[in-house]
Amino acid sequence: ALPLAVIAGPCQLESRDHALEVAFALKEIAERRGFGLVFKTSFDKANRTSLSSERGIGLKEALPIFAEIRARTGLPVLTDVHEREQCAPVAEVVDVLQIPAFLCRQTDLLVAAAETGRAVNVKKGQFLAPWDMKNVVAKLTGAGNSRVLTTERGVSFGYNTLVSDMRALPIMAEIGAPVIFDATHSVQQPGGRGGTSGGERRFVETLARAAVAVGVAGVFIETHPDPDHAPSDGPNMVPLKDFERLVATLQAFDAVAKAA
Amino acid sequence: ALPLAVIAGPCQLESRDHALEVAFALKEIAERRGFGLVFKTSFDKANRTSLSSERGIGLKEALPIFAEIRARTGLPVLTDVHEREQCAPVAEVVDVLQIPAFLCRQTDLLVAAAETGRAVNVKKGQFLAPWDMKNVVAKLTGAGNSRVLTTERGVSFGYNTLVSDMRALPIMAEIGAPVIFDATHSVQQPGGRGGTSGGERRFVETLARAAVAVGVAGVFIETHPDPDHAPSDGPNMVPLKDFERLVATLQAFDAVAKAA
Amino acid sequence: ALPLAVIAGPCQLESRDHALEVAFALKEIAERRGFGLVFKTSFDKANRTSLSSERGIGLKEALPIFAEIRARTGLPVLTDVHEREQCAPVAEVVDVLQIPAFLCRQTDLLVAAAETGRAVNVKKGQFLAPWDMKNVVAKLTGAGNSRVLTTERGVSFGYNTLVSDMRALPIMAEIGAPVIFDATHSVQQPGGRGGTSGGERRFVETLARAAVAVGVAGVFIETHPDPDHAPSDGPNMVPLKDFERLVATLQAFDAVAKAA
Amino acid sequence: ALPLAVIAGPCQLESRDHALEVAFALKEIAERRGFGLVFKTSFDKANRTSLSSERGIGLKEALPIFAEIRARTGLPVLTDVHEREQCAPVAEVVDVLQIPAFLCRQTDLLVAAAETGRAVNVKKGQFLAPWDMKNVVAKLTGAGNSRVLTTERGVSFGYNTLVSDMRALPIMAEIGAPVIFDATHSVQQPGGRGGTSGGERRFVETLARAAVAVGVAGVFIETHPDPDHAPSDGPNMVPLKDFERLVATLQAFDAVAKAA
Repeated sequence: ALPLAVIAGPCQLESRDHALEVAFALKEIAERRGFGLVFKTSFDKANRTSLSSERGIGLKEALPIFAEIRARTGLPVLTDVHEREQCAPVAEVVDVLQIPAFLCRQTDLLVAAAETGRAVNVKKGQFLAPWDMKNVVAKLTGAGNSRVLTTERGVSFGYNTLVSDMRALPIMAEIGAPVIFDATHSVQQPGGRGGTSGGERRFVETLARAAVAVGVAGVFIETHPDPDHAPSDGPNMVPLKDFERLVATLQAFDAVAKAA
Repeated sequence: ALPLAVIAGPCQLESRDHALEVAFALKEIAERRGFGLVFKTSFDKANRTSLSSERGIGLKEALPIFAEIRARTGLPVLTDVHEREQCAPVAEVVDVLQIPAFLCRQTDLLVAAAETGRAVNVKKGQFLAPWDMKNVVAKLTGAGNSRVLTTERGVSFGYNTLVSDMRALPIMAEIGAPVIFDATHSVQQPGGRGGTSGGERRFVETLARAAVAVGVAGVFIETHPDPDHAPSDGPNMVPLKDFERLVATLQAFDAVAKAA
Repeated sequence: ALPLAVIAGPCQLESRDHALEVAFALKEIAERRGFGLVFKTSFDKANRTSLSSERGIGLKEALPIFAEIRARTGLPVLTDVHEREQCAPVAEVVDVLQIPAFLCRQTDLLVAAAETGRAVNVKKGQFLAPWDMKNVVAKLTGAGNSRVLTTERGVSFGYNTLVSDMRALPIMAEIGAPVIFDATHSVQQPGGRGGTSGGERRFVETLARAAVAVGVAGVFIETHPDPDHAPSDGPNMVPLKDFERLVATLQAFDAVAKAA
Repeated sequence: ALPLAVIAGPCQLESRDHALEVAFALKEIAERRGFGLVFKTSFDKANRTSLSSERGIGLKEALPIFAEIRARTGLPVLTDVHEREQCAPVAEVVDVLQIPAFLCRQTDLLVAAAETGRAVNVKKGQFLAPWDMKNVVAKLTGAGNSRVLTTERGVSFGYNTLVSDMRALPIMAEIGAPVIFDATHSVQQPGGRGGTSGGERRFVETLARAAVAVGVAGVFIETHPDPDHAPSDGPNMVPLKDFERLVATLQAFDAVAKAA
């Protein structure tokens, strides 16, 4: 198996300068530590808890920024799409289209993403069993795209809580697509703060270690220079200054996992 | 409180003739039993388990049929929308736009539905706590539409299973919008048959009785002349021949509930 | 089906006088409303959250009080047993032995309770599926006692929360033993207050209505003249002054349910 | 932190010869691999799904066998107790008394176990949140015994399924007692085979790897020369021939975890 890859970046594309700054910082870490890095950021948070929550800069403004990040850093870029029409223009400037968990069964969106020919990373819905992802993957491959990744990001467990079932990782791996563990959204407490979602950053490492020891192709970890002032997912993003140590630890577990 | 209303019809709009036949049959029952009826059917099943599952006849073919059902039966019509662009054209021919559970947090879809001015029935996501629906409703009212209904349709409970928490009904009622109990999808076993969702029709009445005794504005019950040969939700639709007796029972409970 | 029976009383046997006072008050209500009443109270709370929580007056002191309540009120009496050795002495002074939910799979306790020849009410564990109760009932009937009742009291749903699955009632009824719905412990929030369990009294009626509409042999409702100062289960006991109205409402639903 | 300890042995004490054979085999592996080993076996399976399931050889026959295993192998021995009266005699011949998960809130049993002065390993109930274990531990320490271990063995997740929440491990560790991960019972499917519990042996390693990477004091793994013919927990016991390789893998993860 290939060594652990990392999908990382700030939850939201706050501005061109901010995104470039984080992308270059992550690139430097990735080169120093020798891991494959995909830069992730979102141009629109389309399902925020509240109408008044920050949505992001939007598709039109984001497209040239994605292109610039890719050109200047040389990093592959991943972003999420929410509507069919977004797939084609986004695919021109990013390497991986991501399907949000709530939308993982929306056939038209999956097909539109698949038809771009880009790699598609589809997150497992919080309401889905791991074996149900084979139907989701089949919608993508049935549309002619075999460059598929699947991502575990927790499953509903009572109200306002997710749990990460580590058995889901080998079950999803049997489908054949590389499996990513999203350590950021797995520690989310959906709606847990009333008008916004909460989260417990201290468990990002806990769950990431567990997943890497079980064996995954990659981890998804949102990071930010100042998470406590980030416009979204602040409670579960890792401070950028802690990112390198975290990934180094995960690499050590990955080495054992892939030798075992 | 007003007496129990009923949202009913076949899951999928199979054809003009089929829809009209069921609509007239339901109208007759509603008149005989004296309950308010909204006719429901879907022009597109946008999130089927498999790519190969029947999707429905599509928006364009459906619009004139909705108009005809409304004109000829005099019944208000409800259908679900999946993309922003569908809201305006659909709103011209139906009375209630319904937001599917998986999409209940998609801000743009909610706003587009709200802006049509039509009543909007939003289903609670299987991943949502009942108190979280206040944020969903606020997205609709914040877009200037106060004609909102909320629907309980079960919450994730382990894998491939939903449970109906009856406490959700009074909690959702506190938000202020009328609460509907969807007795059809609450008995669904999502993904429970591998390539399709299963369901347990025998519990439709169980859960509907419970919800009506707790107190709801209406129930949502899909019905079909021949559910075992229906293209979707067959395992949880009620045979049309059993529909009248079922509603009569629920009306008896409703009378007690609303007198108590 | 027989009309709804009620198992009621204060959670804990606080003193002879307190128990007699509540028993006589309930007897009067039962006679006025015409329902079968079983008086319930516990001599020991053997699984309190904390070591420092009030345990109760103990077996030895309780036995003559049970005898006196039975003799003076003429009511059948129910209490719960926690250890094998308690079954025989308790069976001499009460009519129904109750097996607590946590202990519903302890074979020796079940057999000892069954062998007294008294009726045995076994609560479904919070960790058990409704169909699993057939194995529990078989342990009792296999020990030669067919006077068995089963009680639904909620199932684990995430942390510190229970949910009442109304489908459990008909599933348990298929086993053949009368099914009771425990509306008091179903609204418990286990461990929800840190050192004690919480609860939401306002949902006792919600869940009891639902269960009665679905159809049960009886309901179990703890009641107390002053729940907020009771030594246990205060947050989920119904004030004695509200008890009659609550049961009257449930009787109205029961009449519809058993006519349907 | 100390290196990973292992609690292992056959689920049931089938016979003196069988127990000794497995104990010596495990001792040899432990010496070769250099890990601390506690030998585990049960003299009574007091909560089997069915009355007809094998219970075990019983307390009286088991006591001299425990003594002999301890004397001849030099291994510390652990067994589970189900009733107060068992604690004192069992404590004379074993080193660790274990409280079964269903019984983890039974105050009298906890106190009786604590009063023996032996170490007590208490399993977290399938119905308990990890933070609730502080109340359980306090019952033991409040009875004067600070030699306490806590064990995670999965939490109820829908019907007939457990899930292992890896966040529970650091939460339980904060209580102060060493935390064990029970990889055998965490893969159990309670009642999942109708009359017996099922299990998925293939996930023992999955979950054990995850737990060790998160960081635990020890793992609990039942093993048997021929699990498919074992009288209990066969579907989730590891074949003895695979045990050494499994522990070696876990030791490699433990080394990384405790260096991190």
